[in-house]
Amino acid sequence: MANTSLTPGRLTIDLGALKHNYRLFQSMTSARVATAVKADGYGTGMIKVAQALIKEGCDTFFVATAQEGVTLRALDPSIRIAILGGLLPGAEEDYLAHQILPCLSSLEMISRWAAFAKTKDHALPAIIHVDTAMNRLGLSEDDMRILAADPAMLEGIDVLTVMSHFASSDEKDNPLSALQAKRFAAAAAHFPDAEKSLCNSSGLFRDPAWHHDMVRIGYALYGGNPTPESANPVKPVVRLDIPVLQIRSVKKGETIGYNATHRFEKDTTTATLGFGYADGFLRSASNRAHVYWQGQPCPVIGRVSMDLVTIDLGGLIGPLPAPGDVIEVLGPHQGVDALATTCGTNGYEILTSLGPRYARHYLS
Amino acid sequence: MANTSLTPGRLTIDLGALKHNYRLFQSMTSARVATAVKADGYGTGMIKVAQALIKEGCDTFFVATAQEGVTLRALDPSIRIAILGGLLPGAEEDYLAHQILPCLSSLEMISRWAAFAKTKDHALPAIIHVDTAMNRLGLSEDDMRILAADPAMLEGIDVLTVMSHFASSDEKDNPLSALQAKRFAAAAAHFPDAEKSLCNSSGLFRDPAWHHDMVRIGYALYGGNPTPESANPVKPVVRLDIPVLQIRSVKKGETIGYNATHRFEKDTTTATLGFGYADGFLRSASNRAHVYWQGQPCPVIGRVSMDLVTIDLGGLIGPLPAPGDVIEVLGPHQGVDALATTCGTNGYEILTSLGPRYARHYLS
Repeated sequence: MANTSLTPGRLTIDLGALKHNYRLFQSMTSARVATAVKADGYGTGMIKVAQALIKEGCDTFFVATAQEGVTLRALDPSIRIAILGGLLPGAEEDYLAHQILPCLSSLEMISRWAAFAKTKDHALPAIIHVDTAMNRLGLSEDDMRILAADPAMLEGIDVLTVMSHFASSDEKDNPLSALQAKRFAAAAAHFPDAEKSLCNSSGLFRDPAWHHDMVRIGYALYGGNPTPESANPVKPVVRLDIPVLQIRSVKKGETIGYNATHRFEKDTTTATLGFGYADGFLRSASNRAHVYWQGQPCPVIGRVSMDLVTIDLGGLIGPLPAPGDVIEVLGPHQGVDALATTCGTNGYEILTSLGPRYARHYLS
Repeated sequence: MANTSLTPGRLTIDLGALKHNYRLFQSMTSARVATAVKADGYGTGMIKVAQALIKEGCDTFFVATAQEGVTLRALDPSIRIAILGGLLPGAEEDYLAHQILPCLSSLEMISRWAAFAKTKDHALPAIIHVDTAMNRLGLSEDDMRILAADPAMLEGIDVLTVMSHFASSDEKDNPLSALQAKRFAAAAAHFPDAEKSLCNSSGLFRDPAWHHDMVRIGYALYGGNPTPESANPVKPVVRLDIPVLQIRSVKKGETIGYNATHRFEKDTTTATLGFGYADGFLRSASNRAHVYWQGQPCPVIGRVSMDLVTIDLGGLIGPLPAPGDVIEVLGPHQGVDALATTCGTNGYEILTSLGPRYARHYLS
C-alpha cells in the first residue's frame, strides 16, 4: 500500500543506482558478473532487483535457500540460479524440476547428488564449493584429497563451476585473502573444465588476479562500501524516511522511554517517530544512533521501542519538524555503513533487517 | 511453502498455548482483556493470532499502524481495532472508512480529529492517550490542563477510552509504576464516562488496583515472561528448529567465519546451520548465544552470517547430528527471554525479528 499516512515509513529503492553499480563492476573485470540476491535482495526486493539486473545482462544469480531459487525461477526460465546453502536431503527432485543449481559443499552432498543423477538419463549440473578459510560451507583439503583419489564420486555430476568465499576481503591487505586465493587455485586445478569463482564485492576491488571467470557481487550492488578503508566507490541504493508522529516539550530531569535509560539534562524538544525494532531499526541503536532532519543530526534518545523511536531536536538550527514531516534514517546524510557503525553491526544486517511495514517505492 | 528441504528453518506457533495464556489473563482480572497484535502479532502472524483470540472472546485489538488496522479489519467487521501510533495528517477518511480507532496522543491529533468530525453528522470515536512517564506518545500534564480549560476542543469526539502506558512495569517494585498509576488516575478523572486502561503484560501481574476497565496484553500472550524476577507464568508459544547443512571436522588453530573472530583451541566438530541474521537471528548472537541438540547446548562460534550460523559440537555427549537433522533455537530448552539475554536484547526483539524465510506451522 502506498498510502504513507497509513504506513509510516517510506523505503525508496533506487534501481537506477543499482544498475549503475552493476555496470561499474562490469567495467572493472572481464569476468562474468554474477549477483547475490538472497535474503530478498538484501532487503531491497529480490524480484525487482533481478528484473533490473537481467536488463543489464546479468545471467547468474546466487540465493541462499532453494525456496528463494524457486521464487526467482518463476521470473525467468533461462537465468542461472545457484543455491549457496547447498542441498538438503529430500530436495533433489525439486532442484531438477526448477532447474536450480546446488552449490555442493560436502562429500555428503556430492554423494546424494551423484546418486540422484544415476536415476536420471543425463548428467546433472552443480557448483562445487571448496572451503579456503571460512570453515562454514565447502569441501576441506581432506575432502579434496578423497575426491581426487576417487573421481568416480563425481560420476553423473556436470561441474559447471568451482567456487570459494573470502573471509576477510573487506580488510585491505589482510594476508588471509592471498592465502585463500592460493588455496583456491590449488583446489580449482582439480576441475580444469569448470568455471572458477572466488570474489565477493570486496574481492572484486582488491586484486584482479583473483577475479577468475566469475565474480559474485552482493553488498556493493546495494550501495554498501566494499572498501571500508576508503571512500565508497558505489552509489547508495536505499533511502529510508520516517514521519514524525508527535513533537513534545520535555523538562530537565525527566526521563524517556522504557526503563528510563535517558535523563534530560536541560529542557528540550523531542520528536517521536513511527518506526522501531519491529521494522529492523535495531534495538542496539538505543541511545547511540542518529537520524537527520534537513541534514542536521538528531540523536536517538532512550530505548528504541517496537514501533517508536524518540529523538532529541534540541541541537537543531532553524525550524523544527512538525507532525507528518519525514526524518531521514538512511539517505544522503547517512548510508548503511554509517548507521551500522553506530548500531554496533555491519551494513548487511541493516539492509536485511529492513522491515515489511515500510511502503516501498522503486525508482528506475 | 511447507517443504522444509527447500526452506530451512521451521517456525512453530502454538495457538493452543496462546489461547491458554489468554484464558490465564482473563482469570486474573475482571477487566476486559484486550491484546496487542502489532508487528504481525509480535512476529507470530497477526491474522492467525487474532482468529484464535476472537474465538476466546477477545473483542479489542491494538496495532501500531493504520495499515495494520486495515489488514485486521478485513478479518472481522465487529472487533474494536485501536491504532497506537495515533493519526497521521491525511489519514482521517481511512480511519472512518475502516472503522479503526485513533489513539489520540497530542493536542494536534485531537484538533485534527475534532475538525474532521465536524464535517460529519455524528461524533467520531477515539481513545485518548495520556503520558505518565514514557515521554513517547501521549498528552502531557500541560496538555491536560489546556484540555480541561477548554472542553470544546473535544467537541465531536466520542472518547471511548483513556489510556496510558507503563515504562518500567517489568521491574518489580520500581516506584515509577505506582507514580504512573497515580498520574493516570488524575488524568483519567477528566473523562468520567470513558473506559480506563493502563496495564500492559507486566502491569497485569503487578497490582490489581491498576487493572481498571481494560488491560492490554502483548508480550506475555506470546510466551514472554512478564515477571522477569521469577518463573515465567505463561506457556511458550514459539518454537524454532533449524536444519544442519553440513558437519565439519576442524583442527586446533583454525579459525571460523567472517574476519576469523573465533580460533579453535583444540580439534573439534562443527555444524553449519541454515539460518542467519537475515532470518532475525541477530548478529549480536555471534560468539555468544547457544542452540540445543537433544537438550544439550552448543555454542555459536564465529560471526553469525546472513544465512548461516556455525556451532561447536565438541561438548556433546552421544551421537552427533547429521545433515538434515534439526537444532533447537527456541523451544523447551531455550525460551525467547533466554535467547534475548545472550544476544544483549529483549525477547520482544527476538520475536519481532523472526524472519519471513521460515516455514510457519500453526498448532491449534
